[in-house]
Parts: sequence; C-alpha cells; structure tokens
Amino acid sequence: MSDKRKAVLVVMDGVGDRPLPKLGGKTPLQAAKTPVFDRLAKEGQNALMNVISPGITPGSDTAHLALFGYDPHQDYPGRGPLETLGTGLETKPGDVAFRTNFATLDKDMVVLDRRAGRVFSREEQDVLQSAIDGLEIDDVQVNFLATVEHRGALILRGKGLSAEISDVDPHETGVKIWECKPLKPEAKKTADVVNKMMVEVNKRLKDLDVNKEREKRGLPPANAILLRGPGRHNEIQTLKDRYGISSVVIAGGALYIGTAKYVGMVHEKAEGQTGTIDTNFHNIALKAIECIEGNYDYIFVHIKATDNASHDHNAEEKILAIERTDEMVGKIIDEVSGKIVIAITGDHTTSVSTGEHVCDPVPLVLWSDFIRPDSVEKYSEIDAAMGSLHTIRGLDVMPLLLGYAGHIEKFGA
Amino acid sequence: MSDKRKAVLVVMDGVGDRPLPKLGGKTPLQAAKTPVFDRLAKEGQNALMNVISPGITPGSDTAHLALFGYDPHQDYPGRGPLETLGTGLETKPGDVAFRTNFATLDKDMVVLDRRAGRVFSREEQDVLQSAIDGLEIDDVQVNFLATVEHRGALILRGKGLSAEISDVDPHETGVKIWECKPLKPEAKKTADVVNKMMVEVNKRLKDLDVNKEREKRGLPPANAILLRGPGRHNEIQTLKDRYGISSVVIAGGALYIGTAKYVGMVHEKAEGQTGTIDTNFHNIALKAIECIEGNYDYIFVHIKATDNASHDHNAEEKILAIERTDEMVGKIIDEVSGKIVIAITGDHTTSVSTGEHVCDPVPLVLWSDFIRPDSVEKYSEIDAAMGSLHTIRGLDVMPLLLGYAGHIEKFGA
Repeated sequence: MSDKRKAVLVVMDGVGDRPLPKLGGKTPLQAAKTPVFDRLAKEGQNALMNVISPGITPGSDTAHLALFGYDPHQDYPGRGPLETLGTGLETKPGDVAFRTNFATLDKDMVVLDRRAGRVFSREEQDVLQSAIDGLEIDDVQVNFLATVEHRGALILRGKGLSAEISDVDPHETGVKIWECKPLKPEAKKTADVVNKMMVEVNKRLKDLDVNKEREKRGLPPANAILLRGPGRHNEIQTLKDRYGISSVVIAGGALYIGTAKYVGMVHEKAEGQTGTIDTNFHNIALKAIECIEGNYDYIFVHIKATDNASHDHNAEEKILAIERTDEMVGKIIDEVSGKIVIAITGDHTTSVSTGEHVCDPVPLVLWSDFIRPDSVEKYSEIDAAMGSLHTIRGLDVMPLLLGYAGHIEKFGA
Repeated sequence: MSDKRKAVLVVMDGVGDRPLPKLGGKTPLQAAKTPVFDRLAKEGQNALMNVISPGITPGSDTAHLALFGYDPHQDYPGRGPLETLGTGLETKPGDVAFRTNFATLDKDMVVLDRRAGRVFSREEQDVLQSAIDGLEIDDVQVNFLATVEHRGALILRGKGLSAEISDVDPHETGVKIWECKPLKPEAKKTADVVNKMMVEVNKRLKDLDVNKEREKRGLPPANAILLRGPGRHNEIQTLKDRYGISSVVIAGGALYIGTAKYVGMVHEKAEGQTGTIDTNFHNIALKAIECIEGNYDYIFVHIKATDNASHDHNAEEKILAIERTDEMVGKIIDEVSGKIVIAITGDHTTSVSTGEHVCDPVPLVLWSDFIRPDSVEKYSEIDAAMGSLHTIRGLDVMPLLLGYAGHIEKFGA
C-alpha cells in the first residue's frame, strides 16, 4: 500500500469501569459527555478488549507491553527496568534494574523507617545520589538516580547478571534487612553483589553531613537503600526491528515512558504533562500533532488522570478526565484526520468502587476516514460489546493499527 | 453423525472491500444484488474472518493454505511449488520449484531482455521446453514446463535440496546474472546446481534454430531462463491423512489449483473456467454439482474475477462478478441443498480504491439446511459483523465445514 498513514494510540489509563449506583447505574464513560469519542465510535470499528486475556487483571506495565505488541508472558522484564528507563537512567540489555527507597537502618542493619521520613530536598537527593552512583562492586558497575521523595532507580551493569534474586526489604520495621539470595544458581553473583552493595552503601551514606543535618532537624537519616522489583533488561526486538517504524511516546509517568522506551520508542515531552487531572491536555494535543506531522510512524499518547481518579474513588474527576481527553483528541482529529489511523482505549479497568485494577475488558475504537463502520453509536464499555471487532486482545492492537496504516508487509504473494 | 454431508467452500478472491464514495458509501458486496447469498446469510450463520490474523494482509497463497486448515506460518512453502503444481508439473516432497522467465543474455551472461520479447508461439515453447526438461546436473534432475508467454515452471529433484538460496535475476537489464549463493550452509548443493544449470541451459538454448528464427524476425532469442520464488515442497499431511476425506478443486488459476493440490486435492476442470469475468459460471456450477453428487467429500470452488476487477479499480465489474457467482451458487443450492454444508467467503479484501490486498476482514456465511440461524439478513462485510460466529480466523473454516458435515471424529468418549 503506497498510502501509508500515521498510527496513533491513545490510552486513558484505567478508563474502564463498572456500573456505579451514584451515576444511576452508568459507568463513568457512559456518564461523560464525549462527542468526539462518540463520533469515532459511530464512524469506526469498536471492540471490547481483554488486554491480557479473559479474567486476567493487567498491571499497567504488562498491559502496555501487550498494547505495543509484546507478549508479556514472554517479554515482561519486571517493573525495575521499565520504570528505570522512564526516570532517564538508560538501561541496556543485560543490566539488572531496581526501584529503590531511601531508608533508615540502625547500626545492626535493622530497619527503623522504610522511607527515611519520605521528605527530601533536591540538594539532599543530589548528595545521596553522588555517594551511590558510580560505585563498583567486584566487576559490576552501579548507577543510581534519586527521583521523587525517597524514591530512586538503580542499575547493576556487568557480565552474567540475573534478576532471579530474593528481596532485601523485610517490608516491616524492627527487623534486620534480609540477605539477598539467588533464586536460581546462575543468580549467585548478582545476590553477592547486592549484599556487598547494601553494606557499602550504608558505609558511604551513614556519615554524610546531609544525614547529620537531617538528624538535627528531627528527620530520619537516609543511611541505606531498599531495593524492589528487580528485573533484567532482556535482548528484545525493537519496534524498528520488527516493523521498520519510528515511534514516539508522549506520556507523563515514568513507567509509561520507560515501557515505551523498552520497545524502542523515543520520548517527546509535552510541556506541563503530568499524571494528574491538571495535566496540560492542550500541549499534549499540540505535541501529538507535531509528531504526526513529523517523521514518526507510530505515536503513543498516555493519559494517567483517569486511573488516579479511579484509585481515589472519585467518579466526578474520572468523568472530567475523560471529557478533557475527548476534547484533546478532537483537536488532534481536526488537524490530521486524513493522515492517521487512530485507536482510543484503556490499558485496564480500574474500578472507582474498589479503587483497584479489575479484570473487566476495556472499550476500544479503531478509526480512520477509510474504515468500515459498524453499528455502535457511543464510546463506552457497554456499547462496545456490539462492535464489529468483537472481542480482541491487547496483542491485536499493534497489528490492527499498523496493518490499517499500511506498515505491515503482505504475508505471501 | 451418520448423516454425512458434502463440505463445499466457495471463495470469491479478494471479495471484501471498503466503503466506496462512488457507491454511496457502500461496498461492492452491499451494492450487488445477491438474493442467493442473502438467503444463505438469513438462514445460516455469519462471521467476519481474519484469514491470517487481525491486521495482517494475506497473500492469495497463504490465505488459501489457512482456509484449507494449514497454518501458513508453518506450512507455507513459498510461491514456487504452489504455482508449479498448478501448471501441471507434479512436484513431490523434497523437490525445489521455481517460477521462471525466458530471458535474453549476451555472451557474457549480461541480461538484455528479462522476458525475451514476451511473445512465444506454442511451437517455440515446445522446442525450448524440450531443450531444458530432463536435464541432469550432477545427481539432480531438472523438469521444466513452458506455460504462458515467457513464463514457465521448473523443478529440481534430488537428495538434500534446499530453497534457501539467493536470486539469479538481477531485476534489471545491462547487468550480469547474479551468482546463486546458499543462504544457509545446507543449501550449498542447490546453489551449485543452479549455477551449473544456468550455464548449461544457456549452452543448450543459444544455438537452437528457433532462436535463430526469432533473431531473423527481430525478436530477442530466448537463450536463458531466470528463476524466482524458490520453494521446497515440504512433507505435509494431506487432507486425506488428516481427515480421511477425498477432496477436489474447481479453479482456473494455477496458484489456486496448485495450493489445493499441495494439500492433496484433485483438480477437476470446468470447461471454460478462467480467471476473468468471462469465466463460464454455468459450467462451474455443473462441475460442482457433479463433484458433490460424486465421490468427493470436500469441494473447493474458486472464482478469481472479483479480485481482478478490484486490482483494476473496477467496482462495476466486481459487482458483476459477485452477482454472477451468486447466481452460480443458486444453481448449486437448487440441486443439492439437502446434501451439503457450504461456506461462501473470500481469501482477503482487495480494495477497489487502492487496487491492493488490504488487511480488512472478509465476510463468511456458513449454511446447511439444519444449521441454527442468526440475526443477519444480508451477505456483506458490514452485516456479517452481527453474525453468531463473530470473528473467526481462516484456520477455523476447515474444522467448521468438516465438523458440521460430519467428517470429524468426536474428541473423547
């Protein structure tokens, strides 16, 4: 096909929901005013999507891997490398990455505060970061980045590393940190490095002036880091390798940026994009249009506000986030409708009632100006059930988008 | 089930389409008058079918393998053996087959004309064919058939052959033919044989009287053959092996006949069946009825005219081809309705707008006089979305047909 289109994926995180008594039995998507989504639903093709498979509740990371066309049962590296990549620490194949907390231990390595008081200035973070980043344990290099509050990301880089190791964080106070143990024989080196690193980091942090200052101010010193979510950055085909496409992520949250980078996307920042309802929807639309008009073949836009509202049991804010995203997509469509194939969907259902991810499928609409319409008239989890795409899986989204956009070679002659 | 039926598959090549402005937003299937198909849709079960999988544009060869129940990701041997079998050259498991062109080389093996003037009389073809067919290179036997114009089919038969070889055709004139190289170590023998054959064929053809005559008439001599689409005829289970059924193909085009023969079908010729709108639909109906009344369990009828019209951007002719096929199926149903389970579908969507295969699914109707109806009233890509079969894949068609026809054993007790 000579007439190639740009493939656009818009994900509203956790957008799916269940009927809410306070909305008269409607879901937030049904209750929201969404003239743009409804137009796309009417002119396009609709589906219910089990992002992983029926009955399985997706995490945001596994869900996005599936939406990008990677089977999370094979390709999920754990949260560590995905979130780390999103912070700006560039992991490479072979690295093992962790999420970390600054923590407070006593002299016997007993945990006193798993978050070391939670509050840190950027200056404090910088000093602590410098004391850890660049460390070498045996032949393994340590890279570390302090991110938000007590949180950080850490990479081990060296030969023969494995993420099959046990936890050091006892997840309670008053207990000594756990010894890291290999869960498989090939992880012995990595467990040894982690144990040595725990001691070495404690040695380097405990006497820093910044910690003495904290103690003077009644704050717990950050004399250790706790590690969680270890994952190995595996050797995987990028989207470029697979499809020959250039791809971009427009997102605020580190996990989404990181997961997109893991499969080879470039991150483009929209000024003012955050994970909350106050995110700058207008700038996200402008950045998406710029990327569509530019050299990218595939443009992924992530909106987090829907999920945050759901976790907060806040139906009104979820509706507002949906309506603002509708308006944002309208701006994009107005500018580039003849150049795109677009899908609007969620990565999972987050129930406003339970405040948690649940297994219910999410609606998806696939639209382009040449696509066959179906009989659906509105965009919602209920209406989508009558769509001509019937039930699809997350793994179908990338082939559908790229197939209709003309980026997949014919199979056979 | 004691009451076994005949399973009938009718494929209109490339029949699916997209809404066309010139048809008021209808597809050719929607615009065509199809009383028979509509009756079957109303009385039977309807589906949208992704012949390979969502978003993947099928070739005709891979699509038909899937419709016959063979996963093309495993069983597709390349176009060479499939088309060769369709010409009447009988490949066997282990053979490597090619499509060929007569070509004109200069004395240094530089390509002067990739089609040697394109025009050949049957007499010329016979002489050239005799000079190549039966050749032996080392312990490998060469079989060759001149087919239409400059085209032909060639088989290498011998031990340890592989299709993992590079091209000899430089695809431009003024360039020496390329040396054939093994793409995998085990293909070295085959590449050597091809290189020796190129020299030997040139030696045998260049001084033939038929070529001297061509030169006198100002036509390029056919002093070489160029090879393309190499494929190895693999050892696969036939339909007889799998299901114990006898099966027949009624088709005009070599590729469809060949693909059907590859899985074990017999070819029965309907007088006047061609690949165009002028094909003899009446004779195809008579031949299908004869086969249904005869000893075949599975009858595959292929209509090519729908695809040709699509590639030619000719919506009117596509509609005409659909309407004539509708009438043809009506004749078959009138005669044998109580004896069959029938599916009417396409192998892929060929867009009249783009003139190319595209990834959009195709409609399928499954009918027998005992089957449960669904709510669909018309046969089209739009109406089929509401069918009770929902979305199926090409690989589902053979089990559905043979299952309802009573040719698949119960699984378990």
